[in-house]
Amino acid sequence: MLTLDRVYQAAYTLNGVARKTDLILSSNIADNCELYLKAENLQITGSFKVRGAYFKMAMLTDEEKANGVIACSAGNHAQGVALSAQRSGIKATIFIPSVAPLSKIEATERMGVEIKLIDGLYDDAFDAAVSFQKENDGVFVHPFDDVDVIAGQGTIGLEILESISDLDAVIVPIGGGGLISGVAFTIKKLNPDCKVYGVQAKGADSMLGSFKSNERKCLRNISTFADGIAVKSPGAITYELCRQYVDEIVSVTDDEIATAILTLMEQQKLVSEGAGAVAVAAAMFNKLPIKGKKVCAIVSGGNIDVNILSRVINRGLLSTGRLSELKIEMLDKPGQLKEVSTIIADMGANVIKVIHNPRGENADIIGCFLNISIETKNKSHFLSIKQAIQNAGYKFAEE
Amino acid sequence: MLTLDRVYQAAYTLNGVARKTDLILSSNIADNCELYLKAENLQITGSFKVRGAYFKMAMLTDEEKANGVIACSAGNHAQGVALSAQRSGIKATIFIPSVAPLSKIEATERMGVEIKLIDGLYDDAFDAAVSFQKENDGVFVHPFDDVDVIAGQGTIGLEILESISDLDAVIVPIGGGGLISGVAFTIKKLNPDCKVYGVQAKGADSMLGSFKSNERKCLRNISTFADGIAVKSPGAITYELCRQYVDEIVSVTDDEIATAILTLMEQQKLVSEGAGAVAVAAAMFNKLPIKGKKVCAIVSGGNIDVNILSRVINRGLLSTGRLSELKIEMLDKPGQLKEVSTIIADMGANVIKVIHNPRGENADIIGCFLNISIETKNKSHFLSIKQAIQNAGYKFAEE
Repeated sequence: MLTLDRVYQAAYTLNGVARKTDLILSSNIADNCELYLKAENLQITGSFKVRGAYFKMAMLTDEEKANGVIACSAGNHAQGVALSAQRSGIKATIFIPSVAPLSKIEATERMGVEIKLIDGLYDDAFDAAVSFQKENDGVFVHPFDDVDVIAGQGTIGLEILESISDLDAVIVPIGGGGLISGVAFTIKKLNPDCKVYGVQAKGADSMLGSFKSNERKCLRNISTFADGIAVKSPGAITYELCRQYVDEIVSVTDDEIATAILTLMEQQKLVSEGAGAVAVAAAMFNKLPIKGKKVCAIVSGGNIDVNILSRVINRGLLSTGRLSELKIEMLDKPGQLKEVSTIIADMGANVIKVIHNPRGENADIIGCFLNISIETKNKSHFLSIKQAIQNAGYKFAEE
Repeated sequence: MLTLDRVYQAAYTLNGVARKTDLILSSNIADNCELYLKAENLQITGSFKVRGAYFKMAMLTDEEKANGVIACSAGNHAQGVALSAQRSGIKATIFIPSVAPLSKIEATERMGVEIKLIDGLYDDAFDAAVSFQKENDGVFVHPFDDVDVIAGQGTIGLEILESISDLDAVIVPIGGGGLISGVAFTIKKLNPDCKVYGVQAKGADSMLGSFKSNERKCLRNISTFADGIAVKSPGAITYELCRQYVDEIVSVTDDEIATAILTLMEQQKLVSEGAGAVAVAAAMFNKLPIKGKKVCAIVSGGNIDVNILSRVINRGLLSTGRLSELKIEMLDKPGQLKEVSTIIADMGANVIKVIHNPRGENADIIGCFLNISIETKNKSHFLSIKQAIQNAGYKFAEE
């Protein structure tokens, strides 16, 4: 059973292993509340997961330790278990689905554990891990539905209250529910007045759905780029803890998550993954009653593949009107490129890319297209530029 | 004159204004030393500059404060002065060259100071600031060549030694020399055995050149994407302090800086700008005698335009062999795309983009090109894939 003593024990055990990550006041992200960020993306292995995994493994008996552990994960949990195994001298076998990004597989491999790369998705890797466990001894380290794992994540709650004793609310990402179970339990025990809010990705809102229907739900399909919280069903233990200690759960869209990731990079210089940014997205997009409050959002991790990050940056820029594309129909005569460029420059926007395509397949025989990517301040800035170009007699191509 | 007392006074004055930024042990960046990162990119305004600017303004007389201050900067110094002005209730007029990225101009504007956007480059904005100062009263806050500004930056040295008293070396970025002057002075006074190393961008190595020729040099042209340290000449005060307290200066290339930025993002989840990453680049690329030592690299700032960041990520991926492009000549018959894809997948690489261009302008009439972007582990992984495709009978197009 989860007790506050267990969480304190976890904090003691994690001393010198997990970092006491920084708590950063953010003045630009959400202007209607005093927002602090608990930067667990700066945790070793790049996410909070090492807390639960290490404590779980520290609590094993000597015999269990000798047999080694087994885990299944495409990302953060794998790295958490791998680092814990390395530090504790416990053998670990980790099953990873082949769809996992190369960078995450490499990061796990570097820590010297045994990797079993399984063709397919998470469920395939999970099945392989279960069969492996039946044939070999070894404790299966669950990514979230385990009391010791939850106690380990709860240490984040201790650290937050240590820094801000009069906190009004904490906002926590939810996938399977391990992080929020530990944090909510710890905070409600120590400071019952502090609200605990959970945030899920709209495309993977199994805990929210379970809350609404008053029973544990399993989603058939999930769809979000926030892979760290793309979980089909809450755990049995985590569901019960959330029912008891969490005040409200909301969801955010992938576009909102992308905007939060971009904002964390630009305003706070922090790299966060999709799962890591949902709590910030909920604060930014006014999903929660936190106006005028002292609030802490947990940035749970930063393990995002840089190729995906590039796309997220682009999506965030496009959706906030900071990067825009114009496709202008032109007559193939001189001076027009110059004229359009001048309008754009005069209105304070930067041209990033120009594709001048005199033989566009869909244009009139004598016409051509000018595709211009411009950096703008926001949507209304973009619209006023578009208007000015139209006023100068140009037509935009239909999309 | 710079004294240790002045630095202590700065630390006292900055209390509650500047953040005591995190010091993060990095186990993956440079494996031959114990490397700590002083994360000044997590400082308010995203760089250390606020320390010097705020302290300088705090030391003004009441009359000087009433007259307001003037500054010229395209970036971090502008934001540092703007925030200091806002916090101290001092009027500031800031000259910014029109080439500065929109995001930096906007960030400065948000702090409610007066912005004068000057057509042209830094020198044009500087000239305008000087004329403005002649006509109006007001103290010019120099970005680096000022004892109080230097004392403010020196507080970073205090914070580093407070956390690691037995440090062997500190690595510091150099543009005009303000940061390293303050840090070197402070550290050598308190711990003379600790080495102080400076790092410049190869395309803007005026302090290094001045060291070599034993006199202050002004570069005619500078070229680096690390705009925060793109300075043509060291200051008079900073040059003297560096001569006295800095042990060695080295330089790093733009490709090395890009790789360091990418590494800081992937391994540490920290966004750094070019100037912010040079110290880390020097450690990564073995430019300094730090093997087996306890070392602190200052990550001086994180204000990088996201559009540039996207390009830097790409350049870093390409130069480390993690992203590669293949241009394959094919016969226009079925099954070849599948065959090449299979080879790539079997060898553990991911296909990111395919452009199949059956009417490539330089191909034979019956031939076509296949452009494939693939995500690979490193250069040798890429070369072995290239070899396998060649062994299957394909030819690569000449670049």
